[in-house]
Amino acid sequence: MQRALQIAASPGVPLGPNPRVGCVLLASDGTVVGEGYHRGAGNPHAEVEALTAAGDLARGATAVVTLEPCNHTGRTGPCSEALIEAGVAKVVVAQRDPNPVAGGGLERMAAAGIEVEHGLLVDDARALNPAWSFAHEQGRPFVTWKFATTLDGRSAAADGTSRWVSSPPARRDTHVLRALCDTMLVGTNTVEVDDPHLTVRDPDDEPLPSQPLRVVMGERDLDPDRRIFDDAAETVHLRTRDPLEALTSLYRDHGRHHVFFEGGPTLAAAFLKAGVIDEVVTYVAPMLLGAGKPAVGPLRIRTISKALQLEITDVTVVGEGGEANVRLTLSPGSRGGD
Amino acid sequence: MQRALQIAASPGVPLGPNPRVGCVLLASDGTVVGEGYHRGAGNPHAEVEALTAAGDLARGATAVVTLEPCNHTGRTGPCSEALIEAGVAKVVVAQRDPNPVAGGGLERMAAAGIEVEHGLLVDDARALNPAWSFAHEQGRPFVTWKFATTLDGRSAAADGTSRWVSSPPARRDTHVLRALCDTMLVGTNTVEVDDPHLTVRDPDDEPLPSQPLRVVMGERDLDPDRRIFDDAAETVHLRTRDPLEALTSLYRDHGRHHVFFEGGPTLAAAFLKAGVIDEVVTYVAPMLLGAGKPAVGPLRIRTISKALQLEITDVTVVGEGGEANVRLTLSPGSRGGD
Repeated sequence: MQRALQIAASPGVPLGPNPRVGCVLLASDGTVVGEGYHRGAGNPHAEVEALTAAGDLARGATAVVTLEPCNHTGRTGPCSEALIEAGVAKVVVAQRDPNPVAGGGLERMAAAGIEVEHGLLVDDARALNPAWSFAHEQGRPFVTWKFATTLDGRSAAADGTSRWVSSPPARRDTHVLRALCDTMLVGTNTVEVDDPHLTVRDPDDEPLPSQPLRVVMGERDLDPDRRIFDDAAETVHLRTRDPLEALTSLYRDHGRHHVFFEGGPTLAAAFLKAGVIDEVVTYVAPMLLGAGKPAVGPLRIRTISKALQLEITDVTVVGEGGEANVRLTLSPGSRGGD
Repeated sequence: MQRALQIAASPGVPLGPNPRVGCVLLASDGTVVGEGYHRGAGNPHAEVEALTAAGDLARGATAVVTLEPCNHTGRTGPCSEALIEAGVAKVVVAQRDPNPVAGGGLERMAAAGIEVEHGLLVDDARALNPAWSFAHEQGRPFVTWKFATTLDGRSAAADGTSRWVSSPPARRDTHVLRALCDTMLVGTNTVEVDDPHLTVRDPDDEPLPSQPLRVVMGERDLDPDRRIFDDAAETVHLRTRDPLEALTSLYRDHGRHHVFFEGGPTLAAAFLKAGVIDEVVTYVAPMLLGAGKPAVGPLRIRTISKALQLEITDVTVVGEGGEANVRLTLSPGSRGGD
C-alpha cells in the first residue's frame, strides 16, 4: 500500500475532477506483477493501468488500491468489473469511495467471489485527495478563504483604494494557491467595486492554460462588461446570498471540490457565521492605515470569550526586504466557550 | 578590537543606565597585558579593570576600547584621566561617546600627549548598546511599540473585553521583552480602562527583582488606587499629551534609554504621527472578532499609497498548537509616496 500511495502521488498528475489513485498487483509470492496510477481525467484508471501491465499474471493476484475501485461507467468503464474479469483473487483498499455515484465496488467484487478488505492506511490515502474526499463526504466543496490585511486589520484605505495591500511576491503566491483549486468565488459587491479578473496567472503574468471556474454569488444583476464575464475562463453567477446553498450547488451542479474564496468582509462574515470556512489563508502586509475597510465584517461577537478561534498551521514569509509579507494558514476551531 | 567587543558582550552583565564597554591593553609587541569590561552601574569601568590587571605593564601600552573613555566623574572617576596617569601611549576607540556629559575624553588624552584614533568597527560597537547610543544621539529614548491584535486587527471585543487576546506563551514572551527595556509607558486612558500593573514577571509569574520605571502620560488626574501606583516599582505621571515632550523628559530628567510602549490605539496613533516609534512588536492571535476596538487609531491616512510602510525584521511563532501566536518585529519605514 505504501508503494500504491507513492505512485498515486507521482508528480505531474494534473489536478482535476478526478482523485489521485495508485494500484499495485501482487502475485501470491508477493512479487509485483503490475502497477499503475491515474494520470488525470480522460486517462485510464490506476487499476486498468496495472491490469494492462500485468497481463495474464493478474489472474489470482492481489490488487492493492489506494481508493475503492469505481463501480460506475464514466469516461472509462467500471474498475470493479475489470478486476473481476481479470480474475484477481483479492482486493485490498485503503479509502472507500466517498462519491455516492461511484461507490459500491467492494460489494460488487465480493459478490463475484473476490476477497475484499479496506481501511489499511486510510488516512494517508485520504490525504492524497483531501478536498475531493471532503467534497464527497460533505456534499459541498472544501473552502479556502483568502484575504489580505494590513497589520491593523484593514483591507482598503479610507477612500476605498486597496491596490495593493499585498506585495508583488504575495500576489504571485496567491496565484500558486488559486491554481490548486478548481473554483474561485467572490460576491457581486466585489465584482462591482474591484472588477477582478479572477484568472490564474503564472509568475510571468501569463494566464495558465487550464483555469478554475469563476463564480460570483449574490442576487444583484451585474454589468456584463465586468472582466469576470470575459472569455478567459468559464463563469457562473449563482443568484443566492446563502453560502451553503451556493456551495451545495457548486458541488451538485458543477462537480466542484475546492473553492478559493476571496470575498469581501460582508460575504466573508456570512461564510464564517455559516461555518463553511475550512481553511484560512491570510497575507499580512507590514503596513498601517489606521482607518479604512476592515478585512472582516461583523460576526455578531460581543465579548472576547466568544471570539472565533483558529489554529495556526503554517507561517511563511513571502518575499524579501520591503516586499516581505507574512502568509498565515489557519484551520478553523470553535467559537470560545461561555 | 574584536576581543574588546567580545568581552564587552560578556553574558551576565545586567542592563542598566550604563553602556556595555570592553577594553584590551596591548604591549608594543602586541601581547595582551590586561583586559576588562564594564559589569554594570556601580562597578569599575572597563578601562580601570584593564589597567588594574596590567599594573606597571600599562606604561607605554596601547588601549583598545569599544567606547571613548569617559571624561567625567560619576560613580567612578574619569577614565581618560586614569589612562593618562597609567602612562598609556596610544588609545584606539571604536565609538565616540554620544553622551554630551561624558564625551571629550579623546581630546583630553590627546592634549596629554597620547596618540588617539577612533572609528574602528564603530558599527559593531554601536550595536553593543543600540538603545543607549540612540538615546544619547537623539536626546530621547528608543521606543519599542508593542501591541496585540487579532487576525482582523482588533485589540478588544465590542463590549471592551480584551483579556486575553494574546495566548499565555505570548504574554510570557512580552515580559521577556519588557525586561530588556528600562521604562514602560502607557496613557492615562489605558490606566483607567485596563488598570495594568506594568511590572515584569518571570516565567513563574514572580516579579523580577529589578523593575523598569512605570510611566503614564496624559493630562487627566488618576485615581491613586490604580495598580500602577503601588510600590512594586517606581512610577512617574507625565502630565503631557505630546509624545516628543514626554520622551524628551524621560531622557533628560529620568535618564531613560529604551521605552517599551504599550499604549492604546489613540496614543499609539499620536506616537506614529509624531514619528517617534522606532520598533514595532506585534503579537497576532489567530482569532477573529469582526468588530471591537481597533488595534491602531486614526492616522489621517486617506489612500492606500499613503499607508505607513514598515519592514519586517523578524517573524517568530510563540507557543504551540492552539496557543501559538505570531510575533512580528518591524522597523519603521516611510509614508508611501504620492
